[in-house]
Amino acid sequence: MTYRLVEVQKSVLSKNAGLARDLRQRFAESGTFVLNLLSSPGAGKTTLLEETLRRLASTHRAAALVGDQATDNDSLRLARAKVAVRQITTGAECRLDALMVGKALDGWALADYDLLCIENVGNLICPAEYDLGEDLRVTLMSVTEGEDKPLKYPLAFNTAQTIIITKIDLSSATGFDRAAARANIERVHPGVQVIELSARSGQGLNEWLELVEQRVQAKRVAAPASV
Amino acid sequence: MTYRLVEVQKSVLSKNAGLARDLRQRFAESGTFVLNLLSSPGAGKTTLLEETLRRLASTHRAAALVGDQATDNDSLRLARAKVAVRQITTGAECRLDALMVGKALDGWALADYDLLCIENVGNLICPAEYDLGEDLRVTLMSVTEGEDKPLKYPLAFNTAQTIIITKIDLSSATGFDRAAARANIERVHPGVQVIELSARSGQGLNEWLELVEQRVQAKRVAAPASV
Repeated sequence: MTYRLVEVQKSVLSKNAGLARDLRQRFAESGTFVLNLLSSPGAGKTTLLEETLRRLASTHRAAALVGDQATDNDSLRLARAKVAVRQITTGAECRLDALMVGKALDGWALADYDLLCIENVGNLICPAEYDLGEDLRVTLMSVTEGEDKPLKYPLAFNTAQTIIITKIDLSSATGFDRAAARANIERVHPGVQVIELSARSGQGLNEWLELVEQRVQAKRVAAPASV
Repeated sequence: MTYRLVEVQKSVLSKNAGLARDLRQRFAESGTFVLNLLSSPGAGKTTLLEETLRRLASTHRAAALVGDQATDNDSLRLARAKVAVRQITTGAECRLDALMVGKALDGWALADYDLLCIENVGNLICPAEYDLGEDLRVTLMSVTEGEDKPLKYPLAFNTAQTIIITKIDLSSATGFDRAAARANIERVHPGVQVIELSARSGQGLNEWLELVEQRVQAKRVAAPASV
């Protein structure tokens, strides 16, 4: 039984890889820079996206896809930033996959968007295995979760190009050991970029927004000239 | 493909239900009270178990099983409480199942234990579907995760008989809205018992320990007389 499940999962992942390749090709043609945000529940994905979209919405054509097992709370929160938002309710599934993303984009003219932010389901295990065709995978960990999370969920930290340590304003209240956390990240993903951030105090937000803006700009320049 | 996956998953869950029934029968015969702790990564399962085992170890014969995707950090932490501990490393799997628990118990004389604490993998989705034969399922949510988690992960909160709100000492630092959190829990699981707790300040610990002690005692009384 376990063997059969593993076989089916392998074939699901291989099908996903093909669909993600197609999505990546579409995003390259449209010049849309795509973020995929991963974290535990409550690490601050929605809050970071709210801030990101609020600050970039006037200068960028942004959109968001929000995955959740149940409820559309997060898409309602993001809609306040006045950008296009679609909800993907995953039911029993613990992650988004490329098929869900492709379906959610149905009817959207991707060339109208510079930036597409995908907020994955709150989970450090399942989403790490599924490529969504994104340009930048970002894994968030909050200071309240403890310093050991990179070691316990290595794939989520190893497959991300940027790690954001969130709620950094709560460091002293929680007794967060910054050096240990950074060492654990470095151990599972040597050299990876790490941003320490608090959406509440604003620390690190500019560093994050500059990174996104640079990447959006680079993607737009690399896109085929529009006809 | 999705259909085939759903079919295989159904059959995995049905097989798990049978194995969980066998485990529950074994626990009834040995008079072992079994806890299954679920939560997001970093909500405080290991810290609560450390405290629980440290305080009950002198008066109870306790043991623990610890599930994790990688590392044996948690079992090393629990071993400090000087109780029998076994690690279950789940690899790509996002939850424990009854087969893993049964295998981990190999060679243990269950009748030697009054209390078996199972710490599930840090994840609010997958573990909720798998019965481990436990007597009491406890779902933890920390005040730092936000008040909406019960609505977003309804199965984890609906299938637990006790909900523990952890890190309650950080309520004001995080701006935790207690009334909203309680209302959200009540909405997905009307009437469920809720304990507000801080392993750091000690708030709620006695309420939790009394609950465990009462249930251990009741299970022991109900067990078949040993020969």
